Amino acid sequence: MGLNVYLSGEIHTNWRDQIIDGAQGLDVTFSGPVTDHGASDDCGVKILGEEANKYWHDHKGAMLNAIRTRKGIADSDVVVVRFGEQYKQWNAAFDAGYAAALGKSLIILQQPDHDHALKEVDAAALAVARDPAQVVEILRYVLTGTLPG
Amino acid sequence: MGLNVYLSGEIHTNWRDQIIDGAQGLDVTFSGPVTDHGASDDCGVKILGEEANKYWHDHKGAMLNAIRTRKGIADSDVVVVRFGEQYKQWNAAFDAGYAAALGKSLIILQQPDHDHALKEVDAAALAVARDPAQVVEILRYVLTGTLPG
Amino acid sequence: MGLNVYLSGEIHTNWRDQIIDGAQGLDVTFSGPVTDHGASDDCGVKILGEEANKYWHDHKGAMLNAIRTRKGIADSDVVVVRFGEQYKQWNAAFDAGYAAALGKSLIILQQPDHDHALKEVDAAALAVARDPAQVVEILRYVLTGTLPG
Amino acid sequence: MGLNVYLSGEIHTNWRDQIIDGAQGLDVTFSGPVTDHGASDDCGVKILGEEANKYWHDHKGAMLNAIRTRKGIADSDVVVVRFGEQYKQWNAAFDAGYAAALGKSLIILQQPDHDHALKEVDAAALAVARDPAQVVEILRYVLTGTLPG
Amino acid sequence: MGLNVYLSGEIHTNWRDQIIDGAQGLDVTFSGPVTDHGASDDCGVKILGEEANKYWHDHKGAMLNAIRTRKGIADSDVVVVRFGEQYKQWNAAFDAGYAAALGKSLIILQQPDHDHALKEVDAAALAVARDPAQVVEILRYVLTGTLPG
Amino acid sequence: MGLNVYLSGEIHTNWRDQIIDGAQGLDVTFSGPVTDHGASDDCGVKILGEEANKYWHDHKGAMLNAIRTRKGIADSDVVVVRFGEQYKQWNAAFDAGYAAALGKSLIILQQPDHDHALKEVDAAALAVARDPAQVVEILRYVLTGTLPG
Amino acid sequence: MGLNVYLSGEIHTNWRDQIIDGAQGLDVTFSGPVTDHGASDDCGVKILGEEANKYWHDHKGAMLNAIRTRKGIADSDVVVVRFGEQYKQWNAAFDAGYAAALGKSLIILQQPDHDHALKEVDAAALAVARDPAQVVEILRYVLTGTLPG
Amino acid sequence: MGLNVYLSGEIHTNWRDQIIDGAQGLDVTFSGPVTDHGASDDCGVKILGEEANKYWHDHKGAMLNAIRTRKGIADSDVVVVRFGEQYKQWNAAFDAGYAAALGKSLIILQQPDHDHALKEVDAAALAVARDPAQVVEILRYVLTGTLPG
Repeated sequence: MGLNVYLSGEIHTNWRDQIIDGAQGLDVTFSGPVTDHGASDDCGVKILGEEANKYWHDHKGAMLNAIRTRKGIADSDVVVVRFGEQYKQWNAAFDAGYAAALGKSLIILQQPDHDHALKEVDAAALAVARDPAQVVEILRYVLTGTLPG
Repeated sequence: MGLNVYLSGEIHTNWRDQIIDGAQGLDVTFSGPVTDHGASDDCGVKILGEEANKYWHDHKGAMLNAIRTRKGIADSDVVVVRFGEQYKQWNAAFDAGYAAALGKSLIILQQPDHDHALKEVDAAALAVARDPAQVVEILRYVLTGTLPG
Repeated sequence: MGLNVYLSGEIHTNWRDQIIDGAQGLDVTFSGPVTDHGASDDCGVKILGEEANKYWHDHKGAMLNAIRTRKGIADSDVVVVRFGEQYKQWNAAFDAGYAAALGKSLIILQQPDHDHALKEVDAAALAVARDPAQVVEILRYVLTGTLPG
Repeated sequence: MGLNVYLSGEIHTNWRDQIIDGAQGLDVTFSGPVTDHGASDDCGVKILGEEANKYWHDHKGAMLNAIRTRKGIADSDVVVVRFGEQYKQWNAAFDAGYAAALGKSLIILQQPDHDHALKEVDAAALAVARDPAQVVEILRYVLTGTLPG
Repeated sequence: MGLNVYLSGEIHTNWRDQIIDGAQGLDVTFSGPVTDHGASDDCGVKILGEEANKYWHDHKGAMLNAIRTRKGIADSDVVVVRFGEQYKQWNAAFDAGYAAALGKSLIILQQPDHDHALKEVDAAALAVARDPAQVVEILRYVLTGTLPG
Repeated sequence: MGLNVYLSGEIHTNWRDQIIDGAQGLDVTFSGPVTDHGASDDCGVKILGEEANKYWHDHKGAMLNAIRTRKGIADSDVVVVRFGEQYKQWNAAFDAGYAAALGKSLIILQQPDHDHALKEVDAAALAVARDPAQVVEILRYVLTGTLPG
Repeated sequence: MGLNVYLSGEIHTNWRDQIIDGAQGLDVTFSGPVTDHGASDDCGVKILGEEANKYWHDHKGAMLNAIRTRKGIADSDVVVVRFGEQYKQWNAAFDAGYAAALGKSLIILQQPDHDHALKEVDAAALAVARDPAQVVEILRYVLTGTLPG
Repeated sequence: MGLNVYLSGEIHTNWRDQIIDGAQGLDVTFSGPVTDHGASDDCGVKILGEEANKYWHDHKGAMLNAIRTRKGIADSDVVVVRFGEQYKQWNAAFDAGYAAALGKSLIILQQPDHDHALKEVDAAALAVARDPAQVVEILRYVLTGTLPG
């Protein structure tokens, strides 16, 4: 058994790298969104032409990003959604809801002071982790039955 | 043709009432979450017993709320998600993602300064409205073909 | 047994009225798009605000129309798609493809000189009719087993 | 992440080759309809026997073509639909509707003077491109996060 | 709890009437194909125009009958398929396979000397009955928990 | 909003009546299996003829019961599964798994000394209740937002 | 593009070999039922133990064969169903119905004197072929666009 | 044709090894739950932190196990569920119900004195085997058409 794991959410820290590095040797294929913030914001107008209106500027980009996001989530067995310390992060919560409706196994990576605000999201999850190392341990256990230390 | 409309999101203003009042005479059946904040937070422990740990207190409640939310969204044709001025509102974004994955017609009700933060959510929507009256006009047009004014 | 029938396509002649009138007394519920051409074109900007760019003007309207169209097709048992003599009518062909993918029973109403151009559409249909009266006869036969004359 | 891309629509210019050539080096698998117009028209009778009636001649061929088209679209992640300058092209719009109902990511390749006629089709798409090079740039961005220039 | 029951198969004896009469007082809604053999054979050409070729004569009719059959099976909870003593009855077996793939509860009504020939069909069924009265008793038991005599 | 609730599991105490009585005045439609143990065991042979082999005796009955069970679960929004003090009750756990795979909201009604043995079942549930009154309170809260005194 | 093709139906002539041989060089993976008639009839009792009752003897075997048949059809893109000259062949028609409900592309291989009896089956098919060579030509055309001679 | 086979249920004897060893040389890929009882019970708290309450201790573990179980069943063609002599084994029956609702081919491995208690589970199965060697023979027959000696 191998797992396809989509890593959604916060893009300002290296949590994805920590999980990918930690999972070396496991039969896991990772995917995720474009994490270059500037490219992600401007891809629509850079490829398809400028927009005078900022709303449509954003919209064209968000729709291109959706091609990648939908494919990544649809192909995944597990979706990890990381909520960071800052920003609205509504796209992270949107991905969690999208994945939940498709029946994907959800792991939420969050800090304790967000617990109350995330309770509806967590109610659809199979695990709430506090750091990337715990996500790695979950993947290792699911694939090999091995527990830490 | 009639419509089932689920009203998700912000619970601190009377936007649901404005839409329901405005839509009188249209063949619309509305549903939505429990909007009593205290009841919504405490329903789990009030019905199923106290929890020493706040996380599980929240979890038991969120799971009961999910019975209502999932039913309401599953039965709906249109899901309106309102993002208010305050709070994280991750449950609203979660509902939007959940509804999008089920192929529901999404209408997002948001203020302009949230446009950038909501761009991925909006990319899955069929309309972005600025006030409840616009939502009413959309429902009227969809059902009757009549435009305002 | 009753039937929900969605009447898609051409909006410049009274073919829908002919079918609805002819089917009186049968257990059929009809739906269809907004057939007021002006309202259909301008609904987006009339309700949600003007757009400087004609493309987005059209886009906002088409997305509102999609709320009605998707609901109507999703709820239908039979989708009748009428191709008229004029115009591109790509929305009609789009509806036919959409309905076919959902497994709806398709009836195409077309004139003989369009037969070659419509062959891929017709290959997904259960009937190709030449006039509204034939559609009425099909509905009557399907519901009652009665043949004309 | 790799992508399966189905290239639907116009068969009289070399737009497919431009996209396939431009996407060399990307993890994309392309498919599409039979683009030999004569073979596509006559395959039914050539293989399964002549028909006296032109309608059934066309029908037998269109049904064989549907074996390929349905398989190609069903297996795809992205469906690109090209509307050319000429002809009715109802099969292209049909494919777009079919793909939309299956939840595929749609990219429409069209010229500006078709924008109004294609607005319902575009409302279901994640991108509207003006030339094959833009489609290549979209695929490159979705797969690698890289923007042009 | 009520049941929608589709009565498929043999049309030369009054087995449908026996079941419908026997089930009076139960909350069952019955549907079935057009049982007028002549109408069923000729409906296509009578409504949509003559065909010189007998194959297409039959085809046009069979496609119209499919509108009714698919609707009836799709809406049903239980599909009863009756195999009579004569004829090929491939449409009956086709309906059984179609219903099985949709997860409908299948009841096959057959005589013992057909048992071996029907074993693959029976393997997908929840009951094999020998006469219409047994089908009535099954419906009565499923709806009310009452057994005969 | 109304709810369809399927009451699965233990048939030797009056827990179903307690829930149905307690829920009077709420918009709930209840269904459940045949609770006459003897009828449930013997329905197959009583209706369709005796079997010499006890295995097939049981099998014929279990398949008839499946017609009712599958319909009841498929139509439900909420499935309540009661595990009693005695017996293997594998049919109860089977129903829970069946309902979980269909995405139904599960409520498990169990005594504390079964908690460990039921942990995989509970992991798929939205609530674990200890007595029928709690189930009633959940239904009341979900439908009306009202919490117990 | 490659195709998975399931070859259902008649097992007394070498039509499967003709198709498989003719398709050499094409990207096709074939599957089909167990074609050893004796093994197919007796597999249940040979593996799982004798049955005194011939009906259950057949039933146990038919259920084992269903493991293979359902897997083969579920994984296929195209299902070819061959109706031979003799026998009831209800399993062939059952497979056709099963495949049709799953949206598979159906090719029926039949002799002209069966045309009337098979009209409902043919109405769900994309091709009706008269000999195995035509099936090969269809597969070749679908995969390569090449027509015979 | 190859098969993915999920081996669910009893973890205290070596029945999985017997099946896997016996199936050597067949195109079968096996999966199953974590069979280390201690790890399976404690995985949640070992990875995600201790719980004071035994219920939540169990719950956290069961949810992690669900990631593996759901993936294994979802990817399988055949689910074998073994009921042993001891314990409640509700997770086994839950898996059987879950697999049945997804349309998987079920094989139940059980001793005769459990036949009555398992009749509802068996009614959803395609085979009831008495020992692991019979399961191997089923897999061999399904894949190769070969019967035992």
